Amino acid sequence: MSQTRKIRFGVIGCADIARKVSRAISLSPNASLYAIGSRSLEKAQTFAKTNGFPDGAKVYGSYEAVLDDENVDAVYVPLPTSLHVRWAVMAARKGKHVLLEKPVALNAVEFEEITEACESSGVQFMDGTMWIHHPRTASMFEFLSDAHRFGHLKSIHTCFTFAADPNFLENDIRVKPDLDALGSLGDAGWYCVRAILLAANYELPKTVQATREPVLNKAGVLLSCGASLYWEDGKVATLYCSFLSNLTMDITAVGTKGTLHVHDFIIPYDEKKASFYAASESSFDDLVTKWASEPNKHVIENNLPQEVLMVSEFSRLVAEIKFNNSKPEKKWPTISRKTQLIVDAVKASIDRGFEPVQIQE
Amino acid sequence: MSQTRKIRFGVIGCADIARKVSRAISLSPNASLYAIGSRSLEKAQTFAKTNGFPDGAKVYGSYEAVLDDENVDAVYVPLPTSLHVRWAVMAARKGKHVLLEKPVALNAVEFEEITEACESSGVQFMDGTMWIHHPRTASMFEFLSDAHRFGHLKSIHTCFTFAADPNFLENDIRVKPDLDALGSLGDAGWYCVRAILLAANYELPKTVQATREPVLNKAGVLLSCGASLYWEDGKVATLYCSFLSNLTMDITAVGTKGTLHVHDFIIPYDEKKASFYAASESSFDDLVTKWASEPNKHVIENNLPQEVLMVSEFSRLVAEIKFNNSKPEKKWPTISRKTQLIVDAVKASIDRGFEPVQIQE
Repeated sequence: MSQTRKIRFGVIGCADIARKVSRAISLSPNASLYAIGSRSLEKAQTFAKTNGFPDGAKVYGSYEAVLDDENVDAVYVPLPTSLHVRWAVMAARKGKHVLLEKPVALNAVEFEEITEACESSGVQFMDGTMWIHHPRTASMFEFLSDAHRFGHLKSIHTCFTFAADPNFLENDIRVKPDLDALGSLGDAGWYCVRAILLAANYELPKTVQATREPVLNKAGVLLSCGASLYWEDGKVATLYCSFLSNLTMDITAVGTKGTLHVHDFIIPYDEKKASFYAASESSFDDLVTKWASEPNKHVIENNLPQEVLMVSEFSRLVAEIKFNNSKPEKKWPTISRKTQLIVDAVKASIDRGFEPVQIQE
Repeated sequence: MSQTRKIRFGVIGCADIARKVSRAISLSPNASLYAIGSRSLEKAQTFAKTNGFPDGAKVYGSYEAVLDDENVDAVYVPLPTSLHVRWAVMAARKGKHVLLEKPVALNAVEFEEITEACESSGVQFMDGTMWIHHPRTASMFEFLSDAHRFGHLKSIHTCFTFAADPNFLENDIRVKPDLDALGSLGDAGWYCVRAILLAANYELPKTVQATREPVLNKAGVLLSCGASLYWEDGKVATLYCSFLSNLTMDITAVGTKGTLHVHDFIIPYDEKKASFYAASESSFDDLVTKWASEPNKHVIENNLPQEVLMVSEFSRLVAEIKFNNSKPEKKWPTISRKTQLIVDAVKASIDRGFEPVQIQE
């Protein structure tokens, strides 16, 4: 094994979420903040100063300049969704590994352009879904995959809602049709879909049907919506996402033998530990006046926050490619694509008057 | 106020659930086990002996005999749903107050016959939904009705599932089309619907649409199904009920300002206390790496089990009528009817190929 060094990140764009990910890069043992680019050099300078970029970090007045810097190994792209295909493809073509915010694209066809560019350049792709990297998620997946404790999945409900303030509802990129046309579905719904895919061991449903009466803003962007998903084997999933309700993020997954409950799956209540509740072969006492036992609380400690674990895993894969001639890990673009396919199907169902939509692999 | 005595119950039928309710009657401070009737005198005798009936209790070899006993004030009817209309109507006509197992009828038209009989005889009607009588439910309702802590309801998901054993799936009345034709919808779904109504302050939805791909047994009885409910103001509810998954009973209710979580709403984990989780104006820290605060756990202690509280409240109303010339409390048949109307609409939607069904008040 060759000697490796920290993976040098360039960040293109100064979105709010870039603050969190910049901190994560600086905290990651195998990554470093190397460059920041914005369309405004001044904004980039301010961002670098206030977000832990080292003194020698490169500060650029354009995204291209970051991509043209030969010392940048990987880029983190926090730009609005409508810009993803352009900048992720350009980054890949310039040989940069791509850590891309979610939703990865406006639709799966666009996303195909991104993955094709990454594949032909041999760079790693990963989307910015942080909670998947928390050790709690691995522990939940283990429970959900356990034929004895959980059995096989029969139904799952997930939701992610938050109460956006008036400024968000007026001005945030996520309510603008030209920037994040998928609105709450692409933003909040993305996580619900990913949780459902995780519980279904990443098997795509065959049919998706949007719930009636989604809420759209005047520009036609989804502020809240829901959907039901159906698999060949009879599994059913429902999801609900919204910018208009109190902050809530739930998974209730029910199998033939077990049940999983979690209330903070996307952002854990605490940075250093997280929990979920698991029950197996739950039953009542003889007279059905109480339960034989309560679900067990599983607490998982994590030394590093989940977003740091995401950056570390991405950087590890990049280092394997750069220094050990490994191939990109296909798991990550594959699950991004499946998530996007379901998001697309929900959107298509809404557009077609809530008709069921078949998922095309 | 006239002097009152304990309300004398006659139980007609020896179903499993009658064991629990007989115990509740015996534990209730204002009720007493007075008579038991079964089509088999021997079964009635055994039931009386093993379920705390006092030595002097009347034991009859028919349901009619219980209804003809002038000392019986009220009857508890645990018979299969298809027999409800016949026996509840007969009980009412004979001047007996009626505590009726749920689902109250095969459909709202049948239920109308029951309520008409109760009204014209001036007897109290109540259905056997126990959890509504738990002080936790009052506490949850208070939270859900609080404009400051919860705001107004935007979405609610409820589920009730349990893993029926092979014997249940073959022989239980709840899988027989001639006995409990509504299957899991009438049995488990009833509670989900009631929880949704509670959260909606008993306002009926305007539209109900069943989820696709319910599971039916060979005789056409629902083993699992789901639905979405829609209100004029944009509220959305989803429910899922099943005989084919691990025991699970959840409410996740999300308002503009608050969230309620509960995992044991129908049968509390513990007979003497129960809890729910409430969150208000939930938010993250500045960098969105953790929550500003976790939902609060509310623990409510109850001296008497919820089924005893149900019997006590029913008996209190009966005593008010018998001894104080009060009128029957209309709240109880009203919420039974609303629950039945929604159950009917889910069934109708399934029968019509999952079309949306308008609720007719």
